[in-house]
Amino acid sequence: MLHSFIEVKPESHFPIQNLPYGVFRPLRGGSPRIGVAIGEYVLDLSILDDAGHFHLTSVAGKRIFHQPSLNSFMALGRPVWQEVRKQLQHLLWIEEPTLRDHPELRAAAFFKQKEVEILLPARIGDYTDFYASKDHASNVGAMFRGKDNALMPNWTHLPVGYHGRASSIVVSGTDVRRPTGQTKPPTISEPIFGPCQQLDYELEIGWLIGPGNNQGEPISIEHAEDHIFGLVLVNDWSARDIQAWEYQPLGPFLSKSFATSISPWVVPLDALEPFRVKGPNQNPEPLPYLQQSASASFDINLEVCLEGDGMNARERICTSNFRYLYWSMAQQIAHHTVGGCNLRPGDLLASGTISGPEKESRGCLMELTWRGAEPLRLPNGQQRVWLEDGDQLTITGWCQGDGYRVGFGEVSGRVLPAMK
Amino acid sequence: MLHSFIEVKPESHFPIQNLPYGVFRPLRGGSPRIGVAIGEYVLDLSILDDAGHFHLTSVAGKRIFHQPSLNSFMALGRPVWQEVRKQLQHLLWIEEPTLRDHPELRAAAFFKQKEVEILLPARIGDYTDFYASKDHASNVGAMFRGKDNALMPNWTHLPVGYHGRASSIVVSGTDVRRPTGQTKPPTISEPIFGPCQQLDYELEIGWLIGPGNNQGEPISIEHAEDHIFGLVLVNDWSARDIQAWEYQPLGPFLSKSFATSISPWVVPLDALEPFRVKGPNQNPEPLPYLQQSASASFDINLEVCLEGDGMNARERICTSNFRYLYWSMAQQIAHHTVGGCNLRPGDLLASGTISGPEKESRGCLMELTWRGAEPLRLPNGQQRVWLEDGDQLTITGWCQGDGYRVGFGEVSGRVLPAMK
Repeated sequence: MLHSFIEVKPESHFPIQNLPYGVFRPLRGGSPRIGVAIGEYVLDLSILDDAGHFHLTSVAGKRIFHQPSLNSFMALGRPVWQEVRKQLQHLLWIEEPTLRDHPELRAAAFFKQKEVEILLPARIGDYTDFYASKDHASNVGAMFRGKDNALMPNWTHLPVGYHGRASSIVVSGTDVRRPTGQTKPPTISEPIFGPCQQLDYELEIGWLIGPGNNQGEPISIEHAEDHIFGLVLVNDWSARDIQAWEYQPLGPFLSKSFATSISPWVVPLDALEPFRVKGPNQNPEPLPYLQQSASASFDINLEVCLEGDGMNARERICTSNFRYLYWSMAQQIAHHTVGGCNLRPGDLLASGTISGPEKESRGCLMELTWRGAEPLRLPNGQQRVWLEDGDQLTITGWCQGDGYRVGFGEVSGRVLPAMK
Repeated sequence: MLHSFIEVKPESHFPIQNLPYGVFRPLRGGSPRIGVAIGEYVLDLSILDDAGHFHLTSVAGKRIFHQPSLNSFMALGRPVWQEVRKQLQHLLWIEEPTLRDHPELRAAAFFKQKEVEILLPARIGDYTDFYASKDHASNVGAMFRGKDNALMPNWTHLPVGYHGRASSIVVSGTDVRRPTGQTKPPTISEPIFGPCQQLDYELEIGWLIGPGNNQGEPISIEHAEDHIFGLVLVNDWSARDIQAWEYQPLGPFLSKSFATSISPWVVPLDALEPFRVKGPNQNPEPLPYLQQSASASFDINLEVCLEGDGMNARERICTSNFRYLYWSMAQQIAHHTVGGCNLRPGDLLASGTISGPEKESRGCLMELTWRGAEPLRLPNGQQRVWLEDGDQLTITGWCQGDGYRVGFGEVSGRVLPAMK
């Protein structure tokens, strides 16, 4: 097993096997630049670049790690990402003296994660949200249309998705204001206006696109994964009462567009390879453009924790797994582009709520409480049907290796009261 | 009436009263820069800037017209746009010698429109499409759900909208490839894959956002128009067969995301002021956040023309008007942001299909042919139910003044056959 000279605890999300990319700014000053997380540190790649440690790679001279977003690096494609990853693992390796035995360079290039401000990793041009968990779609469908009509007829034939709002994507740690809007409670005849009364989170995984495709030229499923730079955790905050009133016939709009939170560290697809697994069996067999032979899912443990005002600690309210998703990332990319829609570097695609077959694996409050019928009991005698002001909602995720974890860190956000 | 020393015919869309902004590149070479259209010319604002003709305005020294998009100029806000517009009208005025009597500057600053490549006017961060025509929503609803349930219950209470795809927005003149995708004809039990058989256009108007708003801070309806930089024509190409199969429950996705075309010249809201009119009466009265006292619509004539292979000329197939729209631009902006969603400079909002009460004012083929029941008869014995390969679809629009027009030029695109 590969070890770094940087001490990394077995439960850390950021061993040398991971090396997720992010954009950060030192709290002591300086412009945004690109780094990788290792243990409790961030390694500043712009400093390594200045010191000539990428001079044998394809990024040499490009000053690509001095930029305030990963977009340019993402656009270069998998062979270049692999070159850089290999060089980083070499430089961080416990037996390699270049960085280990160079105190000045170490002092300049490593920051404690507490000493930096972490920013959005990419300029996200377009954000697409899918609906790829069969358990989630079945649960929601059963609540709204009854158990016998839970899944729409199209659901098992294509990965249903819709365009989300890119401007309101925020990085973990950003507070989220409860939205105000129009709703029509079933008990009254006219719509009313006021703060959302049914604020929810959604446990999702997103992936950021590397090289894109030209408009009119689909990405085949065989090549789809070459377009995935890496993965992040996503909380797709949802206002269920606004959603119920607005969503027909064109889909969710203001119920989603007030905020979407993502985790800051982008886990490379290459770091997830040891955890590749087969996804669920698909029946009916998808149309040829969605058929894949290889294993196309990943064993990523997911947890959701809630900490409300007056609670002393985060309380785990959900345990799920990425492998529950019915439609793979590759299938979602192939579908997204099959009509000619062009993806661009930095675009975000997300899975939709990831629920599993067990009750505790339901990935949002609407499912966990079955739309309020079964309130969630929390310590201190508290309970929740929907999110309350002051609630801190945290999603975390990791792959469990033998003695190490490849993790995502977390995406966390606190609910602020609605504007007066 | 204001006149320019540049000759402008009465039927021209681009008199001194208009001065729409665009981004262009001279065919003879050079980088993209910003200009305004006047008669058959483009006036290069970067040249005027270099010659010091904006030195008394707020854009002095900013080199804002040397940029390849209008975004930075848009962000400056209405007072600055008005300053610049006033200076341009002054410089182009028939009595003003500065530019008129300066042959070298005239030779450098004016291009024939045929001598330039016209580009997308803005980096469009997010694109939102509304559904604001009551006639359109009623026609479509009647076709799908019957006349008695034509409008969804929410329709008269809020401007229904959804997120569109920003990456595939193209400028007028770009060919559009017929999309391929999954459909399920009603006569068979399983979905099939192939080229779209029901390709349609949608006649729309869009508006580009100037200054945005902070996330969590809605734009009030009183201030909504201050956020509109200007208007363009939009053709929201639509694959009706793909749409019918995919759109439930999350709305249109691949049926729209393959391409959206816009006209290149952005008509300033200030140029449309003489054509401001009251919109339709709204009943029921909207909730307070959507109530407006002032006239909030504009009298913009709209036409759609089709020219197929083997036709000798464009054939007009639709005559509509922007004033038919039920929900105003201000209402759509106020609604879009009421939950806290942030708009950014360069964002595009569009009206949805603009249909009127008459049969010839229906703004898409689905309505004009009533889903194929009444094929459209064209010259040469041709007819259309949906768009065919080779069809050139052109939308144009203008406001008719006394002896002049404030026009939009056109948005045009030709249908290419599906990829093999």
